[in-house]
Amino acid sequence: MSENKQDLDLIIVGSIGLDDVETPNEKRTELLGGSVSYACVASSRYVKTGMVGIVGADFPERYHELYAKQNIDLQGLEQVEGKTFRWGGVYDADFINRTTIFTDLNVFETFSPKLPDAYQSVPYLLLGNISPDLQLSVLDQCKDVSFVVADTMDLWINIALDSLKQVIGRVDMLMLNDSEAELLTGHRGVRKASEAILSMGPRYVVVKRGEHGAMLFSPEGIFIVPAYPVTDVVDPTGAGDSFAGGFLGDLAARGEVTETNLRQALLTGSVVASFNVESFSLDRLSELSSEDIAARTAELAAMMQA
Amino acid sequence: MSENKQDLDLIIVGSIGLDDVETPNEKRTELLGGSVSYACVASSRYVKTGMVGIVGADFPERYHELYAKQNIDLQGLEQVEGKTFRWGGVYDADFINRTTIFTDLNVFETFSPKLPDAYQSVPYLLLGNISPDLQLSVLDQCKDVSFVVADTMDLWINIALDSLKQVIGRVDMLMLNDSEAELLTGHRGVRKASEAILSMGPRYVVVKRGEHGAMLFSPEGIFIVPAYPVTDVVDPTGAGDSFAGGFLGDLAARGEVTETNLRQALLTGSVVASFNVESFSLDRLSELSSEDIAARTAELAAMMQA
Repeated sequence: MSENKQDLDLIIVGSIGLDDVETPNEKRTELLGGSVSYACVASSRYVKTGMVGIVGADFPERYHELYAKQNIDLQGLEQVEGKTFRWGGVYDADFINRTTIFTDLNVFETFSPKLPDAYQSVPYLLLGNISPDLQLSVLDQCKDVSFVVADTMDLWINIALDSLKQVIGRVDMLMLNDSEAELLTGHRGVRKASEAILSMGPRYVVVKRGEHGAMLFSPEGIFIVPAYPVTDVVDPTGAGDSFAGGFLGDLAARGEVTETNLRQALLTGSVVASFNVESFSLDRLSELSSEDIAARTAELAAMMQA
Repeated sequence: MSENKQDLDLIIVGSIGLDDVETPNEKRTELLGGSVSYACVASSRYVKTGMVGIVGADFPERYHELYAKQNIDLQGLEQVEGKTFRWGGVYDADFINRTTIFTDLNVFETFSPKLPDAYQSVPYLLLGNISPDLQLSVLDQCKDVSFVVADTMDLWINIALDSLKQVIGRVDMLMLNDSEAELLTGHRGVRKASEAILSMGPRYVVVKRGEHGAMLFSPEGIFIVPAYPVTDVVDPTGAGDSFAGGFLGDLAARGEVTETNLRQALLTGSVVASFNVESFSLDRLSELSSEDIAARTAELAAMMQA
């Protein structure tokens, strides 16, 4: 926590949770999870990343150490009295669909992100999947951010549409999955839905398609990035968050938002997410070498070569 | 039906049906359908294609004319007393999942494909989705075919697995969708399932993934071909068959089965299938120009460019 504040390239805000995850093969409890955990561990290998989130007094010291070891800036990590946000879910036999068993918001219920001074003038910002009102309050605190990505989900489309539309009108890129894009716009099909979202303000839309990858809709056209076909999925939790973090970390490291850089960074996001699903929690992601990522990125690029 | 028999490059065997199709937007009856109709119309623009199938006395003359106009060789098209195979289905709101309302096999029930002499020494063969026993009988009639693709479906995995395994052991490429690959092998995930199928005999496996495209598993690696994102899906019926026909027609036209030719031909198949879903029956496919296909192929290739 003594990092040089001038070094910060990317701020990520989102949830931090202790997860109980059950797959068809195994059950694990009190895993480090939450959107900001996955996204920051994914991004911090590319650029200096500041984390904005909240945990309770019960947050295990070993998880704190994991963040620090990944060289994540923790000035924006608040620890307060009470219990950390907890989530429990069970995956179906397909490892894709899941059922939420419990969601205990705990300290997350009254979370009101306050950005440290050093976080207010950082070029890249990822608004992880939290309520649009919190996303707006973070946006209000940013002085001269140059590229903002917001993630969202069906819950906010259903219960906070007006605030979400304000967010969409103020960000450079919206990220969401295909069914959410259709729900948000009322259009059937990813192409029509994405074009409708572009007309709501953002310059870019990224539609996540789970085990099928993602699509970028930009003024220069459409880019389809496949998911890397992993041999064994162990736990899909955090795939979308590590995709977002890997993407934006790599993009920030490239230093300029161009179509080519966006496409290369999406490829990176896809590869990082594919490693993430090969273990529970951040086990695989936190131990990855740059060589692992480079090798798989080359492999995925070759799979896209007609 | 007076074509030069020496010209034949590709034989396709499968079903011919009169379809009643209902989508969320529209209902149509007595449409020309069946796997061999879609596949032959898709392939015949690339190479001289011979059709093997059966229709009843009620088969409309206008559909005969449509085949002939597409320059399909019809020596292998049998017309007999009785009624043509009929199928009726209703698509869900997503235009993906469908419910079969009726299946009247009619003359298809006793179909026993007999290949005309001219069809027995043709280099490329597509065994469309019919019973594995019929596929085996066609294989037995072929003297020196050089590249055989078999399509199949969950029904045959469930009720004719032994025969299907014989087919798989005798073909160069198996085509099936992702859930069928898992059902056939008992492996979860498209990668493991495909590798298990490769160990059953074929040199290549193509896994179809509907609106997400397809994957080729070959000795030289994996190729992921996305689907072209159409703006409006009108009727998805025949997408897989037109994909197979466009792919194999283009491959046969290229004259040699190489990894590069396979990948280019899969791109063609994906593009042809994307046009097919933009209309009912063969309306769009039968009117396509080469320029339409070339333009969309270039567009899809650009969408795959990182």
